[in-house]
Parts: sequence; C-alpha cells; structure tokens
Amino acid sequence: MSDADDGQDLGITESKEYNTGEWYAEVVQKAELANYGPEGMSGFIVTRPRAYSLWESIQNELDGAFKATGVQNAYFPLFIPESYLEKEKDVVEGFDPEVAWVTQGGYEELEERLAVRPTSESIIAPYMAQWVRSHRDLPLRVNQWCSVVRWEATDTKPFFRTKEFLWQEGHTAHETHDEAWNETMTRLDQYEDLYRDTLAIPVLRGQKPDHDKFPGAHTTTTVEALMPDGKSVQGATSHHLGQSFAEAFDLTFSAEDEEERAAHTTSWGLSWRSLGALIMTHSDDQGLVLPPTVAPEQVVIVPIWQDDTRDDVLQYATGVAADLEEAGVRVELDDRDERNPGFKFNEHELKGVPVRFEIGPHEVEDDEVTVVHRPDGAEETVSREGIVETTEEHLDEVFAKLYATAEETLAEGVRDATERNEILGTIGQHGGYVRAPWCGEEDCETEIKEQIAAEIVMVPFEDDEEKHVHEGEDCAVCGDDAEETAYFAKSY
Amino acid sequence: MSDADDGQDLGITESKEYNTGEWYAEVVQKAELANYGPEGMSGFIVTRPRAYSLWESIQNELDGAFKATGVQNAYFPLFIPESYLEKEKDVVEGFDPEVAWVTQGGYEELEERLAVRPTSESIIAPYMAQWVRSHRDLPLRVNQWCSVVRWEATDTKPFFRTKEFLWQEGHTAHETHDEAWNETMTRLDQYEDLYRDTLAIPVLRGQKPDHDKFPGAHTTTTVEALMPDGKSVQGATSHHLGQSFAEAFDLTFSAEDEEERAAHTTSWGLSWRSLGALIMTHSDDQGLVLPPTVAPEQVVIVPIWQDDTRDDVLQYATGVAADLEEAGVRVELDDRDERNPGFKFNEHELKGVPVRFEIGPHEVEDDEVTVVHRPDGAEETVSREGIVETTEEHLDEVFAKLYATAEETLAEGVRDATERNEILGTIGQHGGYVRAPWCGEEDCETEIKEQIAAEIVMVPFEDDEEKHVHEGEDCAVCGDDAEETAYFAKSY
Repeated sequence: MSDADDGQDLGITESKEYNTGEWYAEVVQKAELANYGPEGMSGFIVTRPRAYSLWESIQNELDGAFKATGVQNAYFPLFIPESYLEKEKDVVEGFDPEVAWVTQGGYEELEERLAVRPTSESIIAPYMAQWVRSHRDLPLRVNQWCSVVRWEATDTKPFFRTKEFLWQEGHTAHETHDEAWNETMTRLDQYEDLYRDTLAIPVLRGQKPDHDKFPGAHTTTTVEALMPDGKSVQGATSHHLGQSFAEAFDLTFSAEDEEERAAHTTSWGLSWRSLGALIMTHSDDQGLVLPPTVAPEQVVIVPIWQDDTRDDVLQYATGVAADLEEAGVRVELDDRDERNPGFKFNEHELKGVPVRFEIGPHEVEDDEVTVVHRPDGAEETVSREGIVETTEEHLDEVFAKLYATAEETLAEGVRDATERNEILGTIGQHGGYVRAPWCGEEDCETEIKEQIAAEIVMVPFEDDEEKHVHEGEDCAVCGDDAEETAYFAKSY
Repeated sequence: MSDADDGQDLGITESKEYNTGEWYAEVVQKAELANYGPEGMSGFIVTRPRAYSLWESIQNELDGAFKATGVQNAYFPLFIPESYLEKEKDVVEGFDPEVAWVTQGGYEELEERLAVRPTSESIIAPYMAQWVRSHRDLPLRVNQWCSVVRWEATDTKPFFRTKEFLWQEGHTAHETHDEAWNETMTRLDQYEDLYRDTLAIPVLRGQKPDHDKFPGAHTTTTVEALMPDGKSVQGATSHHLGQSFAEAFDLTFSAEDEEERAAHTTSWGLSWRSLGALIMTHSDDQGLVLPPTVAPEQVVIVPIWQDDTRDDVLQYATGVAADLEEAGVRVELDDRDERNPGFKFNEHELKGVPVRFEIGPHEVEDDEVTVVHRPDGAEETVSREGIVETTEEHLDEVFAKLYATAEETLAEGVRDATERNEILGTIGQHGGYVRAPWCGEEDCETEIKEQIAAEIVMVPFEDDEEKHVHEGEDCAVCGDDAEETAYFAKSY
C-alpha cells in the first residue's frame, strides 16, 4: 500500500551480509510484513496481511498433518489462575518472571491474579484429567492455535522475539513412556517436514541439554535452523513431559490390569518464529524472497507495451493468466497503467514473488513467455504452449535453488572443536555450529556464553551414535571426562 | 470419552420445553462440547474438540466468503493501551466497565494499564491510518480471528454468554459513506447466508435502535435468530462507523481532488454465540442435533450382528463406509465389540450424528441399508446400489427438515401489538417478537424491560418500507407519535 506507492521508499538500503539486523527490520517493514506495536507496548507487533497469509500457509500444512495423525483442535481459556501455575513447581519457576498478569476485571480488583497464558500445560492437564478415566480414553491429543504472552525484556525483532506471539501448542496423554516418546518424535518429524518441504529450510534435530529443558519436562527435543548470519534459530520444540504434569494435575487412568496410573504426557509447539526463519533465510538485498509453496502470488505477469501494442499484449497476458489460474497457480497480472515495467519489477522483487513473466510484443509474436526467477534473476524464454507445465517446473526449480542454498549454508556451518579457544575462535570467525565434547555441566556452557554469547543449542538424541563421545575424550571447556557432544552456537 | 463410556450418564434428563436452561447446559456437557472454566474463573469455558470442529466449519465457510470479497486476514496485538481506548470517547464509555486490565508484566508494574482487547477498533484504526495515504489505498479490508474479553458479571451460558469468546472482527475503510454502507450490508448478507445455508437457521435483519448501537457507530445492523424458547439471539452485527473512528485516529486519505478527507469505516463480527444458536435451535431431549453441513460425522454406520453373521456384516459395512468416504462423505463405522447397537444408537443421537445406517444380516442378504434420520427418527430401507447419491439425498433432506422447523418457529414467532399491555401479554404468553409502533425514546423500552426483561432487539432498516409506521399511529408504550416499528423480544 502506501510504502510501495511512494516509489522512493521502495528499495532496501541495508545489506544482509554486513548489517543483518537492520536489513531484516527493513525487509519486514518494506515488504509490508509487520509494524511495531504502539507506544507503551514495545515488544508487540502488528502482523500485516502479507505475513499473515504466510502464517496461514504454515497453519494449513501443519494442521493437515496433525489431523491426519489423530490430533483434534480445541480452545482453552486465555487466562490461567495463579494457583494453577503454581501446581507444577518447575513451571512456576520457569515462567513466573515473564508472565503478564490481569489483576482487574471491569472496576473490580480480582481476588486471584490471572496469568495471560505463557503456555497452557497448567490449564490443559486438569481438563484432560476430567476427560480421561480408563486406558480406552488414551491416547488423547488436542491442539490449539492461539497467541501466548511472555514478558521478556529484550529488543523486539519481529517474529523472532516479541512479547506476544502466535503459535500452536499440542498436548497429549499416553499410557506408557514409550508411547509418549513416539508422539514426541512424530511431532518433531512433522516440524522437520514443514521446514524442509514447505519453507525450504533444512534443520538439525536433537535435544536440549538438561538445564535448558522445558520446565518440568523429561526431554525437550528441537529442530534448529542455521541462518545465513551464522546464528541458530530454535525452529520448534517437542517435549516429552514424563509424568510430572500428570502427577501434579491428577491425570490418571485405570489401566487394563485395573491399576490407577499417571499418564505420560507431551507438548509441542511451533510459533511464528518460523516466519522469521523463512524471511531471514531466503531474502536478499532486493527484499523478500519466498519459496513458491507459501508465496501469496507464485507468478506475477508484467506486460510490456507501447500504445500501439497495448491491446495485443494485454490480451495475450490475460490468456496466460487465465490458464495458470485455472490450473490452480496463484498468479497476478499487474496491468496497472500508472507504473512502468521497471517499477513493477522492483516492487514484486521487494515483495518476494518467486517467478516473473515478462510479456511484450516479441513474446506475443513468437508465442512465447519470458520467465525470470526471483532468487537469482535467471531468465529463460519459453513456449506459450504447455505454459502450465512449464510454470510448475519453474516453480519447482526455484524451490530447489532456495533449498540448495540453505543446505549449503548448513553443511558449511557445522564445525568441530576440541578446545575452549577453538570453540571461541571458530564461532567468532565463522558463526555456525561448533560440535565439541562436553562434560554435561552447565558451568562450561556459561563460560562460553559469557565470552561470546554462544550457548549449547542442542545435544544429539540419547540413542544417537554421535552422542557416544570416544573413550577418553575430554570436555573442550573444563577438561573433565566428556559425556556427550554439544552443539554450541549463537542463537536468535 | 469418559462421559460416553460410562453408560449411565448417557441420557439427557432435562426437558428442552420445560427447563430450557438446564437442558442446554446438559446437552453442552454430555455431547462433550464444553466444560466450565476453573475455579476463580467463572464466565470462562473450555471448548472441547467436538464444539471446536463446529467452529472450524463456521470459520471455513465465512473465511472463504470474506476472501472472495476482498478481505485479507491479519493479526493485531491482544492488548490495547488505555490511552488508545480513550481516544474515541464513546468507546471508552461503552467498554470501560467490562475491560480486563493487565497491570503487571513479569515482576514489573506497568506504567500504563493495558486492556485485554474487548474489540479492536482502537488499535486497528491507527495502523490503517499509517497504511492509507491516497484514495488508491482504499478500500482497505482486514479481518482477524481471535478471542476477546468482556468482563460481564452474568451467569455463564456456554457460547451465549462467556467472559472470553472466540469471534472474527472485520475492519474496513472506504472513501465514501455509501461505499461503507455497501460494505456493511455485504457482511450482513454473508452472516445471513451462513445462518441460513450452513446452520439451517433463518434470521431477521434490521438495525439496532440508536441507544443500543455500537459505541461511536453511525448504524449498527444485526441478524436476529429466534430460539425455540421464544428468546432472540443477536446472531452477528455489522457496523457502519461513519467517520468517528477515522477522525479520532487520523485515518485520512488524499482524495482524487487532492483534498485530505477522513475515511468512512466499518466493523463487523460474528462470535461463537452462533454455536450457541446452532445447539439451541435444533437439539432435542435426546441430545445434540446438527445439520449435516457442519456435523463432524455426517453418517454413522452401526453394524448389527450375531457371532455367525459378524464377518459378513462387517465386510459389507466396511464396503459401504469406503464408498461414502471416497465420495467425501464424513462417515464413521462404529465397529466396537464392547457396545451393543442400542447403546451406540443412543450415543450417536446424543452426539448429533445426522444420519445413521443400520446394517444387519437382512440388509446384507437383500443388498440394502436401513437409513435413520436424527431429527425425527424417520426410517427407510434403501438399495445398496447408488448408496452415495442416496446418502446425499438423505443429508439434504435432514437439512431441509431442520430448516423447515426453524422457519416455522420464526414465522409463528412474529406478532403485532399496538398497546403496552398487548406487548407485555404477548411476550409473556408466547415469547417471540412483538412488532409495535414506537416513538423512538429509550424510556419506552426501559418500561417494558423493567416489567418483563424484553427489549427492542431491532428496528427495520431506514430504507425499509416497514419502517414507515402509518400516519397517525401512536407509540404503543407512551402514546406519542410513533416514529418507527420496534421489534420487542427477550434475548440471550
């Protein structure tokens, strides 16, 4: 809207390579993805339609996958009584510092403060407890799409770090520890699939070190994506909660042997941070870059005419647009009179349309279409005949290019180290992940964190061969016996 | 889950006709639609998967209609600074008594209280003001699906009256008053369509009397549905906001003549009260009744077997289920061994499955299926051949029956009166709407309200012939000259 109409505001002025933070903020503003919240509400953002439609694509994809694997959506209250949060002691300790509290309803002071949900285990588990009586009621799987609030005092970075964010939170209950573990992995797989197949982002999978698990959880698993500036993004987490929530909230069932047992629960969430990763990974100094899977417009057709060719060109372009639309391609014909083709090229590049068709008198005469790819400007003239199939091939090609670039970033971004200075030097110089043997003590992470603000973003799964550091290896930081392999990285 | 498994809890014990409130609460609980919120949070409910899937059906339908008519979804912050609410004086007066306030973030006392949004005009208008510069940016249409909180101190009635509720709120800006009026009507039409074609509920259309408009609005239009107990439900509202919000929040645009003008805005919303109307309208003393359009399962197949016929019956039933599923019918084959057919009949009636197939050895032998309708128990034996088409006919028939009953309720429920005692007597005896000439003064409504808690739920549109009370007619309450026709009714 206004920004784009203004012309002079159109270009991105910051550099992704040299000034990533400012560049990201500029892309978010100029591609009309989000605005900052009002005065007095730092940390909040307004999600504009272009970004929200990306979120809807993610929702559609994940929601379909969830429903195909036994999950039902539900909706739980926005507020949680303080006494409920306190029932699981790790939860209250974990979230208390960052809860927004409602203390007044209308003109009346509330007797008990209500937390605006920072996450909903504490209000979902007690209802699951009402719904489950016997093993026949298990597994029980519910999910909700909603917003949560965490009052963190940090710089706002749209989608990456905001006090309120949109997410989904799934909550399940099972008979056994192993069933809950399978559930945890099923959801992690689905998150990995979403990143790989929908967002064109490869991820690493692993689990959080014990001191960084979800409060009260048995195991927190994660998918981590490497951004081009060398920082890691926690893409989604899937928690095996063990029996701690079930015990705190009396979520028990009568087993087949008629014993009363506590259920094993999981929870798993993906937030709009995935949008941040999407924008950050693929975009460039011309603006937003989107994979065709989620782009609101997959193809924009820009007609190029003089007065005497206008009618022919427009008629031809309209025909192409109609063919694509009929085949389900999301296509826009940009036939605005008041803008020249160069302006339109820039605008659609800024907004991240993956494929541009240029159609002028030559194309009309030769029964052709000129196809230009957004990520690299690759250009090809193709036949008008079979344009639908050709378009689909080009969309696939654009997706493949984006994925290949992200894959290369990840492949180059994992390095090994065996000593403290090597960790510090490698991350300092290259960013990315540094794999190092680790004793398992939080202190050794703290040391690295204090010096270069890198942390252990994950360790391999317990059953992963990689975990088994070799006999005799020492912790890269303190020199004691190593217990596992830690992935150090700076992170968003 | 548990309720249904328990057997003895299965039936509805209250009567819809004689004890509507308790009956409704029982249907909501036993059909597993909702639970009441936790202690200390009266007025809140937990929306269980069965009810949420109904809400998803409504969302799909409306969201598609909105998008096909130029609306884009977006997301605005959950909180609104108090100073923003105060910018439009009618809004602060209208909502102040029922706002939930966040006063603490983490351990810190906030400098300015934040309202949990009761509605979002006051935070959306200032952003629209940023996005709109010229007439070319108009119309601008955004919508969000979210929850809002209104701290009303009343008895909780799931979906009808809750402190937090799910809804959509659309917000648009236009160049002229008339364009905003067309928008207001487009959305009201879509709400009427949803009620009629998806929820099988006919509605009346009109506008709220001036004293009952949305705070600050030029006109509030409404669709009203008549419940079988004689009370009216405000099904959705669509507001022409005039220029008051645009002026309060500097939402201006440079017109074609280069003058700077304030935009004309609208807002329109439909909440999960529509779910309440759906449940209340069609359900009966056996439990939930749903139109096939929204039913999570449209057909349930109950196989009826003895040991020696089990395999044949199950195989036949599985084949029927497969045919329906392939054709896109939502079908469930209830092949549980541990329950007898009678139990299953009751359970699926309670849960509102519109059509039941009974398949026993006779049906298998004769290549038939016995079809039973939920609303009235109508039973027919049909040929196995062409079962998909037959099913679709039956689903349409069930829908038509539900709609016809609701239409009859509405047709019988509108009566005329010309005197105060006639209004009181008619509503007291029959419920429903009483149409009466009215002077336009709130005092005359207050008189009726104080005596029988009925109010003016709508008046006809300004351009509606019906509005023109005849020359010389007098207000049914005070006897002064009548200005318009008022629809009095008790309402939810």
